[in-house]
Amino acid sequence: MSEDLAKVIFQPSGRRGEVKKGITIIEASRLLGCDIEALCGEKKVCGKCIVRIEEGFYEKYGIESGQKHTTPWQEEEDKFINAEGKAKGLRLGCVAKVQGDLLIFVPEESRAGKQVVSKAARDIGITWNPAVRIYYVQVDPPTFEEPTGDFERVCRGLEREYGLTNLSVDIFALRQLPTALRDGDWSVTVSVWNNKEVIRFRPGKQENAYGVAIDVGTTTCAAYFCNLVTMEVFDTVSMMNPQCKYGEDVMARITFHMMHEDGLQRMSADILEGIQSLIDKAIEATYPPLKKVKKKKGDKDAPDEFVEAPEEGKKYLRLTRDDIEDITLGGNTAMHHILLSLDPQFVGMAPFPPVVHHSLDIKARDLNVTINPASYIFVLPNEAGFVGADNVGVLICEAPYKSDENQLIIDIGTNGELVLGNRHKLISSSCATGPALEGAQLSFGMRAAPGAIERIEIDPETHDVNYKVIGRDAWRKFSKPEEMKAKGICGSGILDVLAELYRAGVITKAGVFAKQQKSNRTRKNPDTNQPEFVLAWKEESSIEKDIVISQKDVRQIQLAKGALYAGCKLMCRRMGLANPDCVKIAGAFGAHVDREKALIMGLFPDCEIEKILSVGNAAGDGCRAALLNVQKRVEANWCSRNVEYIELTVEGDFQQQFMEAMQIPHMTDEFPHLEGLVAPEILHQMKDQRVPSDTHMK
Amino acid sequence: MSEDLAKVIFQPSGRRGEVKKGITIIEASRLLGCDIEALCGEKKVCGKCIVRIEEGFYEKYGIESGQKHTTPWQEEEDKFINAEGKAKGLRLGCVAKVQGDLLIFVPEESRAGKQVVSKAARDIGITWNPAVRIYYVQVDPPTFEEPTGDFERVCRGLEREYGLTNLSVDIFALRQLPTALRDGDWSVTVSVWNNKEVIRFRPGKQENAYGVAIDVGTTTCAAYFCNLVTMEVFDTVSMMNPQCKYGEDVMARITFHMMHEDGLQRMSADILEGIQSLIDKAIEATYPPLKKVKKKKGDKDAPDEFVEAPEEGKKYLRLTRDDIEDITLGGNTAMHHILLSLDPQFVGMAPFPPVVHHSLDIKARDLNVTINPASYIFVLPNEAGFVGADNVGVLICEAPYKSDENQLIIDIGTNGELVLGNRHKLISSSCATGPALEGAQLSFGMRAAPGAIERIEIDPETHDVNYKVIGRDAWRKFSKPEEMKAKGICGSGILDVLAELYRAGVITKAGVFAKQQKSNRTRKNPDTNQPEFVLAWKEESSIEKDIVISQKDVRQIQLAKGALYAGCKLMCRRMGLANPDCVKIAGAFGAHVDREKALIMGLFPDCEIEKILSVGNAAGDGCRAALLNVQKRVEANWCSRNVEYIELTVEGDFQQQFMEAMQIPHMTDEFPHLEGLVAPEILHQMKDQRVPSDTHMK
Repeated sequence: MSEDLAKVIFQPSGRRGEVKKGITIIEASRLLGCDIEALCGEKKVCGKCIVRIEEGFYEKYGIESGQKHTTPWQEEEDKFINAEGKAKGLRLGCVAKVQGDLLIFVPEESRAGKQVVSKAARDIGITWNPAVRIYYVQVDPPTFEEPTGDFERVCRGLEREYGLTNLSVDIFALRQLPTALRDGDWSVTVSVWNNKEVIRFRPGKQENAYGVAIDVGTTTCAAYFCNLVTMEVFDTVSMMNPQCKYGEDVMARITFHMMHEDGLQRMSADILEGIQSLIDKAIEATYPPLKKVKKKKGDKDAPDEFVEAPEEGKKYLRLTRDDIEDITLGGNTAMHHILLSLDPQFVGMAPFPPVVHHSLDIKARDLNVTINPASYIFVLPNEAGFVGADNVGVLICEAPYKSDENQLIIDIGTNGELVLGNRHKLISSSCATGPALEGAQLSFGMRAAPGAIERIEIDPETHDVNYKVIGRDAWRKFSKPEEMKAKGICGSGILDVLAELYRAGVITKAGVFAKQQKSNRTRKNPDTNQPEFVLAWKEESSIEKDIVISQKDVRQIQLAKGALYAGCKLMCRRMGLANPDCVKIAGAFGAHVDREKALIMGLFPDCEIEKILSVGNAAGDGCRAALLNVQKRVEANWCSRNVEYIELTVEGDFQQQFMEAMQIPHMTDEFPHLEGLVAPEILHQMKDQRVPSDTHMK
Repeated sequence: MSEDLAKVIFQPSGRRGEVKKGITIIEASRLLGCDIEALCGEKKVCGKCIVRIEEGFYEKYGIESGQKHTTPWQEEEDKFINAEGKAKGLRLGCVAKVQGDLLIFVPEESRAGKQVVSKAARDIGITWNPAVRIYYVQVDPPTFEEPTGDFERVCRGLEREYGLTNLSVDIFALRQLPTALRDGDWSVTVSVWNNKEVIRFRPGKQENAYGVAIDVGTTTCAAYFCNLVTMEVFDTVSMMNPQCKYGEDVMARITFHMMHEDGLQRMSADILEGIQSLIDKAIEATYPPLKKVKKKKGDKDAPDEFVEAPEEGKKYLRLTRDDIEDITLGGNTAMHHILLSLDPQFVGMAPFPPVVHHSLDIKARDLNVTINPASYIFVLPNEAGFVGADNVGVLICEAPYKSDENQLIIDIGTNGELVLGNRHKLISSSCATGPALEGAQLSFGMRAAPGAIERIEIDPETHDVNYKVIGRDAWRKFSKPEEMKAKGICGSGILDVLAELYRAGVITKAGVFAKQQKSNRTRKNPDTNQPEFVLAWKEESSIEKDIVISQKDVRQIQLAKGALYAGCKLMCRRMGLANPDCVKIAGAFGAHVDREKALIMGLFPDCEIEKILSVGNAAGDGCRAALLNVQKRVEANWCSRNVEYIELTVEGDFQQQFMEAMQIPHMTDEFPHLEGLVAPEILHQMKDQRVPSDTHMK
């Protein structure tokens, strides 16, 4: 990374990228497509743009430690942020400037525009059946006639009252028993794991127990804090995966392990410490903030005191680490292996066998995660080297194995993970989509937020561009340039732009910029020497730059869509299906995608439009389902061994299929469901444009 | 402890006591009844008295650390001990003098006289059925068609070859798998715990696995190192319980916990570190000693090298900590609780409930014991507060629950633990015998070794004493005084002396020295102002002192025998028995006791003489049985909950029974089996002497 650049990640949106040091946080947010409210137009007077700098993560993980990542506190900030807020890391986004890598949390009230939070907890139907349950028992005190030991005395109560038998006990829990039993006047609340093992004793009657479901992504991790008794999600906390510093993607991390003797250990320790910090952050938030109270008069030596300043009407749980009694955790196979210090190198080498498929119950203490000391972490099982526990999370959340329909489930992150099937058979695969479909890694990619180009038309004669941005109803040609305030292209725009570029002859069917161009919108980028097409001129943008799509961008999109479509198609063939009955799209992409455009562009095989569903962060939801319903853990293991993994790249005609799928647009007779959605003449035109494989493509 | 005194413990005999600083180790060994060979009569020329100073323990546990506990090395020692030996702590017993607390190991070749080692491994019949078994499997390497993960691949092999199913795996073991599998060219040796959990993977085919059975005594700990495949005991190592510094007995340790906030933690850490050092010592002994080799000529800077100097014909196992794959561990309830950091205070308070009865399977790593990282420590279950896992060890070793006979099992250490019953019913109890019956805590108590007075006759008219010492056939009255070389009184002598003192009228039936005495052998000790009786004059002794028995000694013996007999008697009554069919005596006392005298003195209820058996260190043997036969673990748990514990002190007439049992001698009609053993006139005489309870006894 250049020394002038800093990596900035905004939470909870997850928008990230590199920006020049010295710009304000608001400016960075614009560039990266994360909108922060700024009513006053950055005049430092409205105080709406308060953000929280999660700088701690950087210091903790030793990145440029000791160096300030933002410019110093300014007087203007005192008007809007008090001392407590300051201590918590709050800053004004229009004042604080980026000086180094930053993780920035944008509070709900500071978020502008419609928020598309991919990792927030979704309301999914879960049957209550947690692995950790609490039981209250009262027992008689021991006597000479009946001097039975504490544990057996309590066990007898648990059997009598709840029919629990053959319980074992963790030594760390057992150590709590004699005191708990006597403090509770011979009554205790017992936490039992899987009807099998006692993991906690608390004195007297306790009503609640808590757990965390953690979705460990390659880039971001999200933790859902749940009440195990009421199933309520009381907090959702997320962070950047601290391993990002070792490499952006899975292969980079595996390589880091292979190149450094202690690489695995370092990466594992980093993510586990990160998880601990997520837990601690959620726990801290269960207490009211502290208010500083001046020392009393006449007692000069007395220090200022901190007292609690609870918000009225707000309930504070006041939890400790010990109150977290269960954790479920899922991630892709590489993240799974690295977190558990399992050698990930073979996951990165054909035929990509994981060390283990089956779920694991590991004592949190064995991973140096400090919660209730006897508690377990349930690690979701892996399907295959490239279809990990995160996909199992999606599966147990969506449960296609309970469906008569043939469901195609697409989870697009850095890798695309595909599952196809029904109650009788399920197959899975992975394809290298890259993050292009989400807009990431494109020159001007951004999420679907105000200023994002979401629709595009390119005049085939003049190459003039007419477009629409989110947040403004009028298209470009009915607006003044300065009214557009375009910032970038979002997922749906990306699908449009490719089709239009081709239709207008800007690019060939193979995705290469045509030699003959009809306008000055096509030019060579002086830095990269690559052709690019200007979608919006500087004066139409709010970022003072031409918004372009480059040859590289086109290639990225082609590769992604080609891999995805070819993968889906080959899977359908394996299942003997022409098309799936239903397509479910998980992850952030699912939230952005325009279902029609996706069909038109041929992202995946044809399907009834109403049957294309976005299912949000299903991986995280699956972890939550496993936390609250132990049956989901059984299903997860069933899935991991009964979903047949297919390595698509070894299919004889994979290359052929992939090439064909990269064509633009890939309109075929195979999309009958488009007939009603697209004007007949367009459909006809698109069909005509169907081309054979272009073997000259580079 | 006075500053002039040092505590010395000899291993493996376990003899211990305080001696004056400045005496030689040989002198100390004589005083404490542990005989070291000294052919030359301590002239420092025979080199037979080599001992090993286990000083390390003291330094490790912070006792007078840095201070030398023996006098410095002398030139004479160089003749018999080389540099390696010196480095290992070897010294000549006739040269090195006691300067501080010492733990001294007397090697077999240096031991004189007949050795009564209570804690050496006994040849007991154990059925091979260990909890940890090893399995060798070969698997096919993964392919694209069959990319199953490593663990599931191996599991399939284990199921196919050995019928093992539903195996889980410890995360620490799983981390070994990918490398082991590839290093072994797709073959591994798998260690499986209880047919349930994989705890180790090693590449290729391995033939052996090892385990340790540990008997944690209040004073000494012994560890038996076993090959889990062949059942062979390849080493036995023992040490003083490092907690001794916190107090001699169980109650002192419980008190230490209650008086110090970190007391439990410190005591627990000490014993666990001690166990680690036992393990490390045994592991070190599996390598040949190192020999120093001079640096090569012409290369002055090269350091001296150490090379292995194996003994010819000796097999060295060359184990690492990881090669220890299983541990079983037993101790009394207080030792059990302290080791596991379970609050022991309630074990010391009526009605003495333990925290737990049931056995515990605890990962060694959770107790900071470093062996194979995924391995468990099996902790034997407790019967009751005063009848702990050590007694369960005795039970599973002797298995009275498989017997038709009514067995009375007596385990006498600091506490007496009693079990009575048969295959239909078993009851247990404890009685406060104290260690008097073993000769400990008596003025001149010692073990049954040369110089120990083992038979005594006192002339009722003159109070002259005729006696016999071990190692000399001729009695006192047929010998010159200087020929006797008496040192002290051993267990059998203790039983004699009490009867004779009473028969001669030296003491009353209540155990009080009579006011009228017939000789100058009865006198007041000027230091204690207590009466005492001289058994052997200074000129007859080898320790340059009169050997006496004091009023306090008599009281100690009375209390011990009274507690034991009353306990046995009350238990028989509970079982509806007049007498047991069989008496088994465990521990050091069992090895010393003269069965006839024990019966005559009424230590326990009448029994056929051939049915009185010494069963050695049955507690340790029980741990070993549990190590090698998992069925014994099941039996142990059965015992812990089905042996009914009876608190004798709450029996209505306990006090009455105890008082009666303290009478000397307690000869009654209840000992028909003595008829053939004792001359009729003596028996008649003893019966006549039967007396009612003496309520004046103080």
